Amino acid sequence: MNMKQPSSFPVRLILVCLFIFPPLLHAQEFLPSWNDNGSKQAILEYVHAVTTPGSPDFITVPDRVATFDVDGTLVTEKPLSLETYFMISSVKKILADAPDKEISHSQKTLAEGTDSEVDSMSGKDYDQAFAETYSGNSQEEFSSKVVNWAANWLHPRFKKGVSRLCYVPMKELMDFLRASGFTVFIVSGSNIDFIRPFSEELFGVPQNQVIGTESVLKYKVIDNKSYVVKQSRIDVVTVGPNKPIMIEKHIGRRPVFAAGNGTSDPEMLTYVSDGKRKNMCLLIHHDDPDREYQYTNGELVKLANQRGFVIVRMKEDWKTVFPE
Amino acid sequence: MNMKQPSSFPVRLILVCLFIFPPLLHAQEFLPSWNDNGSKQAILEYVHAVTTPGSPDFITVPDRVATFDVDGTLVTEKPLSLETYFMISSVKKILADAPDKEISHSQKTLAEGTDSEVDSMSGKDYDQAFAETYSGNSQEEFSSKVVNWAANWLHPRFKKGVSRLCYVPMKELMDFLRASGFTVFIVSGSNIDFIRPFSEELFGVPQNQVIGTESVLKYKVIDNKSYVVKQSRIDVVTVGPNKPIMIEKHIGRRPVFAAGNGTSDPEMLTYVSDGKRKNMCLLIHHDDPDREYQYTNGELVKLANQRGFVIVRMKEDWKTVFPE
Repeated sequence: MNMKQPSSFPVRLILVCLFIFPPLLHAQEFLPSWNDNGSKQAILEYVHAVTTPGSPDFITVPDRVATFDVDGTLVTEKPLSLETYFMISSVKKILADAPDKEISHSQKTLAEGTDSEVDSMSGKDYDQAFAETYSGNSQEEFSSKVVNWAANWLHPRFKKGVSRLCYVPMKELMDFLRASGFTVFIVSGSNIDFIRPFSEELFGVPQNQVIGTESVLKYKVIDNKSYVVKQSRIDVVTVGPNKPIMIEKHIGRRPVFAAGNGTSDPEMLTYVSDGKRKNMCLLIHHDDPDREYQYTNGELVKLANQRGFVIVRMKEDWKTVFPE
Repeated sequence: MNMKQPSSFPVRLILVCLFIFPPLLHAQEFLPSWNDNGSKQAILEYVHAVTTPGSPDFITVPDRVATFDVDGTLVTEKPLSLETYFMISSVKKILADAPDKEISHSQKTLAEGTDSEVDSMSGKDYDQAFAETYSGNSQEEFSSKVVNWAANWLHPRFKKGVSRLCYVPMKELMDFLRASGFTVFIVSGSNIDFIRPFSEELFGVPQNQVIGTESVLKYKVIDNKSYVVKQSRIDVVTVGPNKPIMIEKHIGRRPVFAAGNGTSDPEMLTYVSDGKRKNMCLLIHHDDPDREYQYTNGELVKLANQRGFVIVRMKEDWKTVFPE
């Protein structure tokens, strides 16, 4: 029988060498885009402590679970989140295809509002607009809409596509955790099916390790073929206390490592830091208006200080922000 | 930094040899507990077709998703399901600890009913009894109850514990699929948190690749510590059309391989067989009263014949049923 596609011979040879001589791995520099200061040291020390056999803080591989928020933690979320740009594009397309189509007030805000008007929509209006816009889409249809949008969209300020808005240091951090036996999950307030089509390429996270806001879905047989179809309601908005709940539903374990930056993350970080095993929480702090943006979540900084989370300061801690 | 725990040298050597010379893998016999007849041949041919580069039916690794029902597909479900025995034990324990405690009619059936009375409970009553019995349990508490129960329980007829009630040929099938680049998921009508504590040991399936019935969960802070706690209601009963829905929620892809045996599985099997990629569905047919049980799901056999599913006949197709 034919197994997985064989890698090329040089790749095989290097992997074999690393496998026979694991000390070679140690020579590799981890987190190259992080400056050598407190945050990087804290991460290296934590991972060393929990992965060294015999260490009092040793954690077995199945329990090495790490969860990352997306917007503002792995990718730029200003002036608007990626998902918001996708929704704006979708509503505009609906109107371009059928100018007389009746749309809701929230969809109208998306199509015609300023960034600030869109940004001030209530969570409820935003979720309702999402549900209305994609109601009736099969999972496959929705996924190809995301892929098509991502192929063309550019960020208004950086003129970069989705794949180049991911913070390089955070990508390195996820790679480092995986190389250290962690399983890395995404826990986003954006719709789970919006993140999935690029989770593998951008974050190295398989689609089934993505957790996010979930639409009500329905099983439907249309012309003798079965589909799972998005309905006009949101089932679970994965923010705040719903983050630990959805972590339990999808992972079934309390993570030992988490990173977040916004109002959707305090409960996830609290849940992780309340675990019995040695844990680490990162708060990504946006203090770099030149390279990215400057904004603060005061409540979260307070929580971070109370609980000893590592506050990652973009300006001081990161050599680079985006891929070249 | 210290990476994953190093394996012993002989293990390393064998793995390295297999890695350098993948043809060695071909010498290994797959599915040794399957008789060499139609079912085994069909499985081998399917996996060959979808994993051979250049084959018109080739499927890339991320799309090689396989889903397995549990009760009656991977483990014995007669006279009652594993979860039912766990619930009976839990309700009896509640009454032993507090004999005057008021319990519901459904809980009373579990504690005092005959197998046949318990088996004829409606799905609604059964789910309600589950929810009542474990309401208030944190995820960690519930998980240790399952582990404690599984450590002591023996099947009434076979006098075997949970780990020895898993069908050997199905375990081999899951191993074979994994060796061929598939990701294997469990999709059970039992509670997701009931399956998880033994999914890794019994099925080789990591906890986050288990899908099942889900309780309503709540995030709670008790004595300044955060928990996720089961509530007195079931959120989603993962049977019938909810199987494809929960597959989309947890996996985000239509599987290409599935196995089932009961009334909870027709929609999952239909959904898989309606996919665009070459797919395979197995129906596990219980026709072996001497080694296991004999019972038929007529509707499912009809569907299997209509759609060309492979009907696995325990008696003819399996050399052994349970581990020695």
